[in-house]
Amino acid sequence: MPELRRDPVSDRWVIIASERADRPSALVPQEQETPPAFDPLAEGNEDKTPLEITALREPNTQNGKPGWRVRVVPNKYPALKVEGQLEKRGVGVYDRMQGIGAHEIIIETPQTVRSFTGLPDAHVQEILWMYRERLLDLAKDVRLQYGMLFKNVGRLAGATLYHTHSQLIAMPIVPRAARLKQQMMRQHYEYRERCLMCDIVAQELEQQVRVVMDSGTFLAFAPFASRFPFEVWVVPKPHLTHYEAVHQGGLEELAFLLKRTLLKIEKGLAQPAYNYMLFTAPFRSAPDDSFHWHLEITPRLTRVAGFEWGTGFYINPVPPEDAAEFLRNVKV
Amino acid sequence: MPELRRDPVSDRWVIIASERADRPSALVPQEQETPPAFDPLAEGNEDKTPLEITALREPNTQNGKPGWRVRVVPNKYPALKVEGQLEKRGVGVYDRMQGIGAHEIIIETPQTVRSFTGLPDAHVQEILWMYRERLLDLAKDVRLQYGMLFKNVGRLAGATLYHTHSQLIAMPIVPRAARLKQQMMRQHYEYRERCLMCDIVAQELEQQVRVVMDSGTFLAFAPFASRFPFEVWVVPKPHLTHYEAVHQGGLEELAFLLKRTLLKIEKGLAQPAYNYMLFTAPFRSAPDDSFHWHLEITPRLTRVAGFEWGTGFYINPVPPEDAAEFLRNVKV
Repeated sequence: MPELRRDPVSDRWVIIASERADRPSALVPQEQETPPAFDPLAEGNEDKTPLEITALREPNTQNGKPGWRVRVVPNKYPALKVEGQLEKRGVGVYDRMQGIGAHEIIIETPQTVRSFTGLPDAHVQEILWMYRERLLDLAKDVRLQYGMLFKNVGRLAGATLYHTHSQLIAMPIVPRAARLKQQMMRQHYEYRERCLMCDIVAQELEQQVRVVMDSGTFLAFAPFASRFPFEVWVVPKPHLTHYEAVHQGGLEELAFLLKRTLLKIEKGLAQPAYNYMLFTAPFRSAPDDSFHWHLEITPRLTRVAGFEWGTGFYINPVPPEDAAEFLRNVKV
Repeated sequence: MPELRRDPVSDRWVIIASERADRPSALVPQEQETPPAFDPLAEGNEDKTPLEITALREPNTQNGKPGWRVRVVPNKYPALKVEGQLEKRGVGVYDRMQGIGAHEIIIETPQTVRSFTGLPDAHVQEILWMYRERLLDLAKDVRLQYGMLFKNVGRLAGATLYHTHSQLIAMPIVPRAARLKQQMMRQHYEYRERCLMCDIVAQELEQQVRVVMDSGTFLAFAPFASRFPFEVWVVPKPHLTHYEAVHQGGLEELAFLLKRTLLKIEKGLAQPAYNYMLFTAPFRSAPDDSFHWHLEITPRLTRVAGFEWGTGFYINPVPPEDAAEFLRNVKV
């Protein structure tokens, strides 16, 4: 029997329909991707990207030259642009403003690899440190309200480049998805005097049926109302509103857990396309806000169709309890 | 310069970034699809589907046998099931209920064709009539709150069958997307004593820059904050809350306009994958509600990636004014 489940963080219902896993086309066949003949993000091709914003580099190497480990450049085809004023105005019943913002690419290694999971933990920690650095830097721009850090891996997840990278789009409004999560967490707090995500973590630790990995301070689990098969959330157990407030010790542990969680997904599901999205509190939120930062990892194993677009409901043929058990058992 | 635009109906911002149309991979290459060797939805294969719910048939033909023009069957792999009770309950911080509902397939013609746009207008009118019939019938089930009628055409739009069909999922809760639209329309009404969609129609008719086709009582236009390239909305000009209240004269005109609008998309964009979703008011809404029914047609020419999933924001490289001009000029 299918089950309807509600995700309290996004106020979204999901249909867990395990019978639909029997459909001949329940899971999308994954494309096998090979390294490109020319890799514009690789070491030695620094002049093929827009001018470097910042990088973690070896001593005595120069901006825009080889010798970097993690490098940040503007997107060559930015969705938003840094220069200009917002010029907010109405157009009859509609609203518009200039597309002010930043759109950066975080190149995670000089090597042409599809994922950072083959790199040493210390290198992954540097990538995560760079996320923090860029969020802190962009938050200084008073025109900007929110920074969305995300990763696309594989064509089915919308990636257009093979080389492992993340993107950061900082924008002049808090997007609806983040605003809604903030609102849901605030409502829960006002009603119960407790953080919603802290309550979720407590329940997952107690039930132990959806946990994928527990590293002590961080938890990776398949959410109760997973929209997608093998969706995993990574959450700090202590209450923390902003990812940017994380310290080096926290990042060391997060690098350890995130790399192994992604390895389980990559190895267990035969290198699927996936996205991850970092949900941190809006730039101007107080650090004691009811928001609790988290990272959502969503493999792209099903196609989204008219039903999902029309309702905001998702149909997931793999119960998160089964997904978590499967991922727990993948040895990495 | 990119522009941020807000859709007042869904409270969603969109980035119109025409510079991104220059990206090598701005639009997804479309797959060429061919008719399947075996078509379970074709005439003569009636025994390959679950038992027929209803059909428009020639006189003296039998349920489950050839002789039909439009035929409705349950989905073989339903997302929701008709039998049982809701059994709503909490699981700690989460909520769940049984997956009660209906999941029907409306087979739009006995012939193996990808789209109904090659059929006579009178046949399209019968399809639209069947949408109405099924919505009215399912609304009688007191457990159900909302009926989502949608169509997936092409694999990139999530279709698993080639044969032209629509789907109707009736569910025990009003989904978030419909609830939000209802809320936005109600807010506008409370503030201005006017329907939001009626205001939009008036503005589109006055500005005339986003109109794709105007048949008198119905309007097809590219919405101001189009999420997707060549997105088109079809709206009745008079204020109507429920699609189900449409009469035969209305359906005749809607069939005329919808078929030609889809033909423009299919011909102008080389048979792209697309979805359409019918937004009608919830079953139990009063007919004088501020809701105004509409149909959204969304070609699948771009891939949705981490940014869209994380923010609910969309990046659209084709301004709707350009899309509307292009579609207006496609001769059908």
